[in-house]
Amino acid sequence: MSHRPPELSPVAPSLGALSPVPAGDVHVTGGFWHARQQLTTEKLLDHCDSWIERMGWYDAFRVAAGQPSGKELKGKLFTDADVYKLLEAFAWEVAQRPDPVREARLAELSGLVAAAQEDDGYLNTFFGPRGRDHRYGDLADGHELYCAGHLLQAAVARLRAGVQDALTTTAVRLADRICEDFGAGGLSGSDGHPEIEVGLMELYRATGEVRYLDQARRFVEQRGHRTFPHHAIGDEYYLDDVPVREATVLRGHVVRAMYLTAGAVDLAVETGDEELLGALVAQWENTWARRTYLTGGMGAHHLGESFGKDFELPPDRAYCETCGAVGAVMVAWRLLLATGEAHYGDAIERLLYNMIATSPNATGDRFFYVNPLLVREPGISTAEGEAPFRKDTLRASWFWVACCPTNVVRLLASLSGYVATVHENTLTVHQHVTGEIVTELPDGREVGVDVVTDYPWNGVVTARVTRSAGSWALRLRVPSWATGASLEVGGAVTAVEPGYAEVAREWSVGDVVILRLPVEARLLHADARVDALRGMVAVQRGPLVYCAESVVGAQGSVDLDRFRLDERVPLDSVAADGPSDAAAAVRVSGVLASAETDRRWPYEGSPPVGPEEAASPTRADVDLVPYYAWSHRGPSTMRVWIPVQEP
Amino acid sequence: MSHRPPELSPVAPSLGALSPVPAGDVHVTGGFWHARQQLTTEKLLDHCDSWIERMGWYDAFRVAAGQPSGKELKGKLFTDADVYKLLEAFAWEVAQRPDPVREARLAELSGLVAAAQEDDGYLNTFFGPRGRDHRYGDLADGHELYCAGHLLQAAVARLRAGVQDALTTTAVRLADRICEDFGAGGLSGSDGHPEIEVGLMELYRATGEVRYLDQARRFVEQRGHRTFPHHAIGDEYYLDDVPVREATVLRGHVVRAMYLTAGAVDLAVETGDEELLGALVAQWENTWARRTYLTGGMGAHHLGESFGKDFELPPDRAYCETCGAVGAVMVAWRLLLATGEAHYGDAIERLLYNMIATSPNATGDRFFYVNPLLVREPGISTAEGEAPFRKDTLRASWFWVACCPTNVVRLLASLSGYVATVHENTLTVHQHVTGEIVTELPDGREVGVDVVTDYPWNGVVTARVTRSAGSWALRLRVPSWATGASLEVGGAVTAVEPGYAEVAREWSVGDVVILRLPVEARLLHADARVDALRGMVAVQRGPLVYCAESVVGAQGSVDLDRFRLDERVPLDSVAADGPSDAAAAVRVSGVLASAETDRRWPYEGSPPVGPEEAASPTRADVDLVPYYAWSHRGPSTMRVWIPVQEP
Repeated sequence: MSHRPPELSPVAPSLGALSPVPAGDVHVTGGFWHARQQLTTEKLLDHCDSWIERMGWYDAFRVAAGQPSGKELKGKLFTDADVYKLLEAFAWEVAQRPDPVREARLAELSGLVAAAQEDDGYLNTFFGPRGRDHRYGDLADGHELYCAGHLLQAAVARLRAGVQDALTTTAVRLADRICEDFGAGGLSGSDGHPEIEVGLMELYRATGEVRYLDQARRFVEQRGHRTFPHHAIGDEYYLDDVPVREATVLRGHVVRAMYLTAGAVDLAVETGDEELLGALVAQWENTWARRTYLTGGMGAHHLGESFGKDFELPPDRAYCETCGAVGAVMVAWRLLLATGEAHYGDAIERLLYNMIATSPNATGDRFFYVNPLLVREPGISTAEGEAPFRKDTLRASWFWVACCPTNVVRLLASLSGYVATVHENTLTVHQHVTGEIVTELPDGREVGVDVVTDYPWNGVVTARVTRSAGSWALRLRVPSWATGASLEVGGAVTAVEPGYAEVAREWSVGDVVILRLPVEARLLHADARVDALRGMVAVQRGPLVYCAESVVGAQGSVDLDRFRLDERVPLDSVAADGPSDAAAAVRVSGVLASAETDRRWPYEGSPPVGPEEAASPTRADVDLVPYYAWSHRGPSTMRVWIPVQEP
Repeated sequence: MSHRPPELSPVAPSLGALSPVPAGDVHVTGGFWHARQQLTTEKLLDHCDSWIERMGWYDAFRVAAGQPSGKELKGKLFTDADVYKLLEAFAWEVAQRPDPVREARLAELSGLVAAAQEDDGYLNTFFGPRGRDHRYGDLADGHELYCAGHLLQAAVARLRAGVQDALTTTAVRLADRICEDFGAGGLSGSDGHPEIEVGLMELYRATGEVRYLDQARRFVEQRGHRTFPHHAIGDEYYLDDVPVREATVLRGHVVRAMYLTAGAVDLAVETGDEELLGALVAQWENTWARRTYLTGGMGAHHLGESFGKDFELPPDRAYCETCGAVGAVMVAWRLLLATGEAHYGDAIERLLYNMIATSPNATGDRFFYVNPLLVREPGISTAEGEAPFRKDTLRASWFWVACCPTNVVRLLASLSGYVATVHENTLTVHQHVTGEIVTELPDGREVGVDVVTDYPWNGVVTARVTRSAGSWALRLRVPSWATGASLEVGGAVTAVEPGYAEVAREWSVGDVVILRLPVEARLLHADARVDALRGMVAVQRGPLVYCAESVVGAQGSVDLDRFRLDERVPLDSVAADGPSDAAAAVRVSGVLASAETDRRWPYEGSPPVGPEEAASPTRADVDLVPYYAWSHRGPSTMRVWIPVQEP
């Protein structure tokens, strides 16, 4: 069906099962995500701004604009995109939380970007006519259109807030240039790193200009025909191995795969291309079922930052780049809007709590880039102010390749836009946050609910109707793991299944619905085909994945190489919940295996003696912490998957 | 102690516990390795020669020599080294198996190399004065001294055969140039890829020129002080993170680590530097105990072709480059000669049977490059004549980066030099091959044994004395896995322990010693710290690691994802040995687990139902084949480590 055009939404499809409730209609006022929105407002945005300045990536625009920067030019192939992602974050932020200082900064930076644009609309600080590399001279690896796509997304954020300014004008001119250059009769290539597709699709939605959709379609359809130069890393890396509508699973570079898929979903939705949408749904489902880590992270290969084969998910070699999670949220939200299926909301929840929340530290001045699930040696700390080359460090202030921080920040700044949807006579709340939603149903009736919850620490989600007009339906997502959930309406409690708990009735202001989700910690077992997880379990508590850290626990440091979790001890009998985030430990019980002694050759000899066979196994407890909080207390070894005591 | 100078030995230390028996004193006449020597003589050498010509890597020398090649220049930074490795292989080959045609080809190619040398002795086809890149302009990544080191090794092979020719003259002039340029008061850098060190050390041994030793010392000692340009891949990659004598384990790029270690052992031995030797021994031991796969392969990271952390050994992500195994044989042989400890002979045996023998196919026209221990999708075939960029293919005719084939061939051509040693009054046979050894003890007495064995298919090794003079000792290596071995001398059988079985007596010609090694297939369990191998076993038969292939077995294809090995069934009751190499299967017995059905999310739900809990578990047998023979029958999935049926 067709919707009213949404405002201030990161994604604004004109067709699909669900229509997003704009970020402006959702006011998050407390709890887990409010804290992270506050961190964004108070710390993360300025942190990124100052680091981009410090790294010289604004200087690249100053030089391109003909302004002497007084600094050595340090921009890299792709750093324009980091500027644009920050501008997008600024745009979402000022639209929801007005701030004249930030508005002025956004205007200043938008002016800088505009000044760097060529007369014919082309814009990239690394390529171009002024002594730089030849325009479109290295499409496979040059990131020109990738950068452009991010500018388009930034401009869309402004347009959705009803603003037209230097940023939006610049973006439209660049989009027109690209359509001219790569349109019918023009150049036939596309960018090795997708992103232009999703940028063009959203710009089409924001402006109604069909040429952007046509150009996006051209880029999507030409992909997969092995048109990029043959490279040692393989065609998969560029998603150039199989046409988009023929692929059955995502592969190659994770972020590239996600960005391409996001743009392709937009294309499929806007053109009513059910075949393409069906292919993309299948790719997502196979990827989620076979190529995704417990945290929602993706990418088993450091080389090429890419997916492994099905079920090839070694926790120690997990790459799980933060940007991949941002891209996965983009795709899952689009597929949720297109199909209305609740499991996409589950996926978004998993990605938010275990990948996005993991990225920044508590003080908002360091970020993770790579997110392994097993760390065998205490992670490498970087000095304050160091921007490491390497990606196996703990959180760092910045990175030499710094795609992740601004990506997280633009998502956090627009997070309210991923909370709820409307369709027909229904308001659906997909993410359980404390705050108020006041929005319009597709028929124009205003409805509102005020939600209070301590989720994920507590499973009680209380929604009070604050606006109503006649009969409509309220739906709350019940996560797939929430077996035993219940819904209370007017004192009557009914069991609800995973999916959506729905109440359709004549609502009055003040009516209350209480969803109770069982957030107790539970043990997880992996599909037997994930070889790397054989004989191990993980703990999840509500949506939160937990982990053991070598530094954690009142019991002092436990040798994680020796700890064997005893599955027979019910977790609720050892739970060690605390009131606060930091103390929200889950205690698990087990034994310490005998220390392995080094053999000259690690594969000879009898099976290792199990702890139960040792004379007096030492019992031990380990307090797990939420994965997102790992290394908050300093360098440590870490395990999400814990070996079990053999029965 | 000091030795007589050995002839025709790949390594010729003047000090150390053992002295190598020269390749010319060891005539392998039958069995497993004779077949591979024959393959080398009849196929591999010519295959490499024709591919180097085809790839244009000789043309790089023709162009450097001022000869028009008539072809587009295709040499790469490191391809000079492949030419030199092949010349080294030719040199070993003609010294043992004279062939006028091959001798002429070697002379022709040596002349070509000599013609490319600059007037001042410098030689590299990629760098230099004739319009090429600036000499020593990119020491970290340019591979100039790496290539030079291989030329020195090739020249040493000629010198050890008593030949002085264009090749040896060219090498000496280049070595002198390098000593001049990098000696006292000269340049301070060294090559990002070690190899020059071991080349200089052997050239020192072959010529007695102390300046080569001094220069090797300079290169070894300056390493590890973080002198290479800072690079995203990290100082470890270049072995530039820790000084050689301070390191405790090998790390970074496997081949670089092994070549550097080989040169450093040579340095430590020749200078009597016990501290350095002790450090290198500890590095080897820690690497072998904690960073080595069951096959002897090394390198858990594709990115950087590098070692992982301790016990980070995922079988599917194993890089295990063939060149790393060649390098490991170089190091282990040097440490065996230096220390006399039998476990180095075990390591060489493991590397030879499971890495070196795995590389070429049976017809000698394809090679493996990367050697994983778990292959989840049938390996990628390459067309005849294709030299793939990618390293995740099955055996290929050649590679775009083709370090491995010539490396394997130079080792196979010199293999007789790695079989036996002498010291004091003792002849030790380290590798059990059919053939005759006639050599001199350090005191000049000639001794000889004729060995007959079907090892590794059969554990009986019969050694008959063919030359004797008074009292001397014969030692035969008993591998570490050979519990229950026995030695029969003159009809008397005694049990022997792993290490060396030694008989010292007055030998007469015709005396016979029979070593009986228990080569029955056995199950192996990994150190519990190798997380990726939890709940799995492997099968080894004598020195041979076995694997399951999806294409193998009279029972048809078994789904390797579902097979669970039953450890309770003794292997000897299901053994399926055959008389020939190809039929040398080991049958294992187990059950087929229920097929895993795809879940939407692979980590939710109850523990997988074990086969024993299923109504009627389907029993299944799988015939394992030696790992070296995997994919001989075409693309397949493959597993070295097999999940066990839960008790």
